[in-house]
Amino acid sequence: MLAELYFTRHPGFWKMLTVAVCMALLGCLQAQEPQGHVSIILLGATGDLAKKYLWQGLFQLYLDEAGKGHSFSFHGAALTTTKQGQELLAKVLESLSCPKDVAPGRCAELKDQFQRLSQYRQLKTSEDYLALSEDIEALVQKEGLREAGRVFYFSVPPFAYADIARSINSSCRPGPGAWLRVVLEKPFGHDHLSAQQLATELGSFFQEEEMYRVDHYLGKQAVAQILPFRDQNRKALDGLWNRHHVERVEIVMKETVDAEGRTSFYEEYGVIRDVLQNHLTEILTLVAMELPYNVSSSEAVLQHKLQAFQALRGLRTGSAVVGQYQAYSEQVRRELHKPPSFHSLTPTFAGILVHMDNLRWEGVPFILMSGKALDERVGYVRILFKNRAYCAQSEKHWVVDQSQCLPQQVVFYIGHGELGSPAVLVSRNLFRPSLPSQSWKELEGRPGLRLFGRPLSDYYAYCPVREQDAYSILISHIFHGRKDSFITTENLLASWVFWTPLLDSLAHEVPRLYPGGAENGHLLDFEFSGSQLAFTQRQPVQLVPGPGSSPMPSDFQVLTAVYRESPLVSAWPEELIAKLASDIEATAVRAVRRFGQFHWRSRAARAPSSCSSSWPRGTMASPGPTHTCGWWMNAASRSGTPSQTSRACRLTCCAREVPYYNVHPMPVHLHQRLCAEEDQGARAYADEISALVTNGSFDLVLLVHGQRRCHTALPLPRVAHKDWRGEQLVVLTESPLPPHL
Amino acid sequence: MLAELYFTRHPGFWKMLTVAVCMALLGCLQAQEPQGHVSIILLGATGDLAKKYLWQGLFQLYLDEAGKGHSFSFHGAALTTTKQGQELLAKVLESLSCPKDVAPGRCAELKDQFQRLSQYRQLKTSEDYLALSEDIEALVQKEGLREAGRVFYFSVPPFAYADIARSINSSCRPGPGAWLRVVLEKPFGHDHLSAQQLATELGSFFQEEEMYRVDHYLGKQAVAQILPFRDQNRKALDGLWNRHHVERVEIVMKETVDAEGRTSFYEEYGVIRDVLQNHLTEILTLVAMELPYNVSSSEAVLQHKLQAFQALRGLRTGSAVVGQYQAYSEQVRRELHKPPSFHSLTPTFAGILVHMDNLRWEGVPFILMSGKALDERVGYVRILFKNRAYCAQSEKHWVVDQSQCLPQQVVFYIGHGELGSPAVLVSRNLFRPSLPSQSWKELEGRPGLRLFGRPLSDYYAYCPVREQDAYSILISHIFHGRKDSFITTENLLASWVFWTPLLDSLAHEVPRLYPGGAENGHLLDFEFSGSQLAFTQRQPVQLVPGPGSSPMPSDFQVLTAVYRESPLVSAWPEELIAKLASDIEATAVRAVRRFGQFHWRSRAARAPSSCSSSWPRGTMASPGPTHTCGWWMNAASRSGTPSQTSRACRLTCCAREVPYYNVHPMPVHLHQRLCAEEDQGARAYADEISALVTNGSFDLVLLVHGQRRCHTALPLPRVAHKDWRGEQLVVLTESPLPPHL
Repeated sequence: MLAELYFTRHPGFWKMLTVAVCMALLGCLQAQEPQGHVSIILLGATGDLAKKYLWQGLFQLYLDEAGKGHSFSFHGAALTTTKQGQELLAKVLESLSCPKDVAPGRCAELKDQFQRLSQYRQLKTSEDYLALSEDIEALVQKEGLREAGRVFYFSVPPFAYADIARSINSSCRPGPGAWLRVVLEKPFGHDHLSAQQLATELGSFFQEEEMYRVDHYLGKQAVAQILPFRDQNRKALDGLWNRHHVERVEIVMKETVDAEGRTSFYEEYGVIRDVLQNHLTEILTLVAMELPYNVSSSEAVLQHKLQAFQALRGLRTGSAVVGQYQAYSEQVRRELHKPPSFHSLTPTFAGILVHMDNLRWEGVPFILMSGKALDERVGYVRILFKNRAYCAQSEKHWVVDQSQCLPQQVVFYIGHGELGSPAVLVSRNLFRPSLPSQSWKELEGRPGLRLFGRPLSDYYAYCPVREQDAYSILISHIFHGRKDSFITTENLLASWVFWTPLLDSLAHEVPRLYPGGAENGHLLDFEFSGSQLAFTQRQPVQLVPGPGSSPMPSDFQVLTAVYRESPLVSAWPEELIAKLASDIEATAVRAVRRFGQFHWRSRAARAPSSCSSSWPRGTMASPGPTHTCGWWMNAASRSGTPSQTSRACRLTCCAREVPYYNVHPMPVHLHQRLCAEEDQGARAYADEISALVTNGSFDLVLLVHGQRRCHTALPLPRVAHKDWRGEQLVVLTESPLPPHL
Repeated sequence: MLAELYFTRHPGFWKMLTVAVCMALLGCLQAQEPQGHVSIILLGATGDLAKKYLWQGLFQLYLDEAGKGHSFSFHGAALTTTKQGQELLAKVLESLSCPKDVAPGRCAELKDQFQRLSQYRQLKTSEDYLALSEDIEALVQKEGLREAGRVFYFSVPPFAYADIARSINSSCRPGPGAWLRVVLEKPFGHDHLSAQQLATELGSFFQEEEMYRVDHYLGKQAVAQILPFRDQNRKALDGLWNRHHVERVEIVMKETVDAEGRTSFYEEYGVIRDVLQNHLTEILTLVAMELPYNVSSSEAVLQHKLQAFQALRGLRTGSAVVGQYQAYSEQVRRELHKPPSFHSLTPTFAGILVHMDNLRWEGVPFILMSGKALDERVGYVRILFKNRAYCAQSEKHWVVDQSQCLPQQVVFYIGHGELGSPAVLVSRNLFRPSLPSQSWKELEGRPGLRLFGRPLSDYYAYCPVREQDAYSILISHIFHGRKDSFITTENLLASWVFWTPLLDSLAHEVPRLYPGGAENGHLLDFEFSGSQLAFTQRQPVQLVPGPGSSPMPSDFQVLTAVYRESPLVSAWPEELIAKLASDIEATAVRAVRRFGQFHWRSRAARAPSSCSSSWPRGTMASPGPTHTCGWWMNAASRSGTPSQTSRACRLTCCAREVPYYNVHPMPVHLHQRLCAEEDQGARAYADEISALVTNGSFDLVLLVHGQRRCHTALPLPRVAHKDWRGEQLVVLTESPLPPHL
């Protein structure tokens, strides 16, 4: 009785004891009741994923299961030659670690045991697969075992799937009575069509029940706890888990890293395919689905999940906001050898508003958000309940677990962030949750820590007794055939049906650029109204005020973050040009109103085309300023004479009404040679400016524009410059950038 | 130019200067352009309101207006004899104070001037009114003035209205060309019918435009600012002031004082008639009404207000929660000489949920709340906007005036509370409001002060440049004929039409009792769902757990506050009895389940009637416990023999199934005499208990019940008692309370 209690409380102990005793006495894997032999073939056995998680997961499986009657063999496979592969694998196996409660000596024994059961083999041709199959059969026969099943874990790029699948199907299926399980890693296609093609292809080799598509988020402890939590707290949640009480649901995965070094993958997928279509959508269905009567029934769970997909309201462009961290395009250009003119439209940040059209969730906003280069690494699901209370006492008298006016939330904290570990949080004024005490324990107090607007002490907070890696959990689920932790074909296609229209509609959408990290400020905040989503800051660029008032630091609020690293306004010429045009227009109108004239200066257009498209249109639409507009050009162009450039620009930029004599190109071509010093062009130009522009102080200066570097525009106000008489007003210099214009 | 600027900035200065110069040179009230003479007759001139506010308001009017061409005379009138009245009035006038910026010497002069224009007169009969009228005419003629108008301020109880109104109408109207204004103080009736009767009666004497019904809240600076604020910030508010953006509106007036000393008034009115029907409803219409194009048009404002009334959705019992502070009934009994059995149903606390059926406000909860004996004195209108944002950065990076995830609120702070002064607050992440700079200034920082969940620094906060009393403002509005600051007959009746059905339906509603002050805890918090309102704590009483488990301090959570001062559970026998019955039932069921039997002890019923009504019904509804139920009685009754009592109770209390031999009255009547010591009844009873009740430990003990003192019930659990063998189990004592049962 005492022992039974002890084992109940320390579930790992019994297993460990059995394994240890068994191995010590018999040096074998046969336990009391032989349940057959399981072969696990890890394809891509020396790849990153395998090295980092999968071998460790297999080792854990071995530790957990070897004592329960099964025997195992582990086959690391890849295309590498046997010798090289063996060496690589040996290194991987050497780095495996035991659970914390295993003594070092015991650990060495266990690792040794596992290593002896694990071997590398090259798998290239179908003959190789046939040979593998024969080897397994020989082993089973030799040891007098029964074959229970084979697991093929595809830790390989998707393009290799088809060949491997064909070979397994044709040459490596186990005999009758033994099962086959193939484990697939994302990406599972790129959109609905490609996912369907891939599914059809795999379907020609494997039965649906043989395929285990991994979404490793389903193995994360807080995510895996969503359904059990909903089940064990049915009584408290029954009345709450619906549109009458839920204010919003936030499903969030934020990263601080960016895509550097991975752009070849990322450029093709982007954040929606990388995170939202799979991880966050799976979580969404776990939160939103109708709870099956029996949550331990895989079939029931999978069926209810699918019903949740059917209730999802279709997404459109207006359901999303997308962003891209500022350095991304440059990283892509560098890593993928793109030309300097290349700008990626791939979003690295997305906020999505999802609605469900069913009685339970109608009108409740589900907010999905993920991004790279954000201010913190954290993942969570937050269910915020509606505040329908009025508290008659002043706030200082509110008691945390009684006041209905404090926020009421349930949070599945996936990991990282300020808490640093997975957790389940329930506001104390909501209810005291029930969690399985053998796997979840109350979190210790962390004074000063605030989460979701409240101190940690405002929550009933639980964390796992033992933190476990998602892959270890999933490998165990594969072994036990728990299909509800994996993505079925129906589930996968339903998700792509949901996401594909949005992805299509976003294909040409220009993402908002953000600097990355804490400097993003409020640039990526978004808000919803009805089913529409929009960035809260509609105008990321706020130019300095017009002439006559000195710019204050506050005038640069929004620019600050953007200007720090680089002169970013927008990477999109169209956007920049439209914005610039309206700014020039506004400045001109103001200047003429105040001073009767408007003088602006710009670098001469590199080529007529650079000022031809949208920006000049409308610039001088109002008739007032055009008659009094002076346009001064800094430098000449090599590709056209200044006069050609200026005329071309005049026609298109300043509409039809700027008199020709108000356009002032630099006189650098006086003797058919560009910028000859003897022309004294600089001096002539300075004289002209002095004669026409009060104090030599321009109303607006456009520093740089052009085809390639149309990145920044900074109108300067008519403020006191350095006394221009003390310096030369016009200087001939060499451009720091080739081609040295 | 400089002077003009100066005067613009200091609007009081010019008036003061004019008055001073004028009086100094001419010693008269005639200004540059004579505009006629105004007589102000204050009826009830020596009453509380007059002493506290009205004379001061008239003095302020004099200071503000005397220099602008009008001449004044002030008549303090009452029923008191002239001599006595003169003395009383002289005292009042002596206590008047000048604005802070007036030097003491100047103040004395001004007061002297005002006193000379003010006189007391007894107004009882219509002859008195006629004499007053003749005196005014004589004065006007003597001074060569033109009569501009007469103001009659009714600072008298409503029962006196009719007589006074008749006398004024018949004997004291000014001649042609001069106006008459009568100012009326609440209460304006008790319900729709009485308000209509009063209005009809007054309407037979006065024209609608002659009547000024005062709701002094309309003179409070923050309230008076609501419409101008909405007007001056139209641009920012246009898109926000509607159901799409407003989460809720709270209109609150909390008091710390109770009704002691005023119960004769309060008992008839209660908090809804005293505060909600008038003050809070007026504020509601100011917030909710469609903004007129011209807010300075009284007609337009009044018309829009009336339209707001028409959009109010009808109230029902479910729209309200009502409470009464615990000491109230006792105060009423004492002050109104009620019998001890009297319990008032008058609410001293009310929370009301109002909805408006129009496109602007549909679905937005307007919460009206007021109460006496609460934790703080404060009044405010809080408009909370919906949070429809998701902030991509973690909270620590939020910038107060940019983050849309912080609360967005507009607050009209009427006064008192932690701020201590009227104010207008607008969250910095909403917009920077525009307020008239001559009368409102930015509030200075108050480190550490939090209002409505946020530090004061999160708001653009404004307070009046000069705090002004509501009555001063209203008296000025009466003088200027600004009718929109007063309650028209239509407005008044519309309000009663709205409130009367609720008042009728609450007439027999039992208010929740509350201890008063901070001890109210969360007892008065309420929440809404749809159009229903309910207290958040559904069960204010949480009894100790059943037998077998020791009560923990946490089991008494809700009781704590209630038990501190007195043994309150409920003052309502019906409520107590029903609650008690269900507790006995539950305890019995548990005890039988655990121990196979249930023994409970109670004081014998004082009379059969005390256990006859609802509480015993249902007590023993489940058949299980009734066969095993032992009922032990502490004491006998004088009004019936114990056997009668117990049989009567048995029949009604324990339904039909408790065997007679399981009812154990005290054997105190053995020899036809009550409690004779020689009977040794105590000993016999002790033996009986010992024989039947395990350890002499009862499952439930009902300490006190009965007709008059049915206040408390405390079932004790089956825990280890003091060893009963060490003490006498049954003792004969004399009751500490008469009639010594």
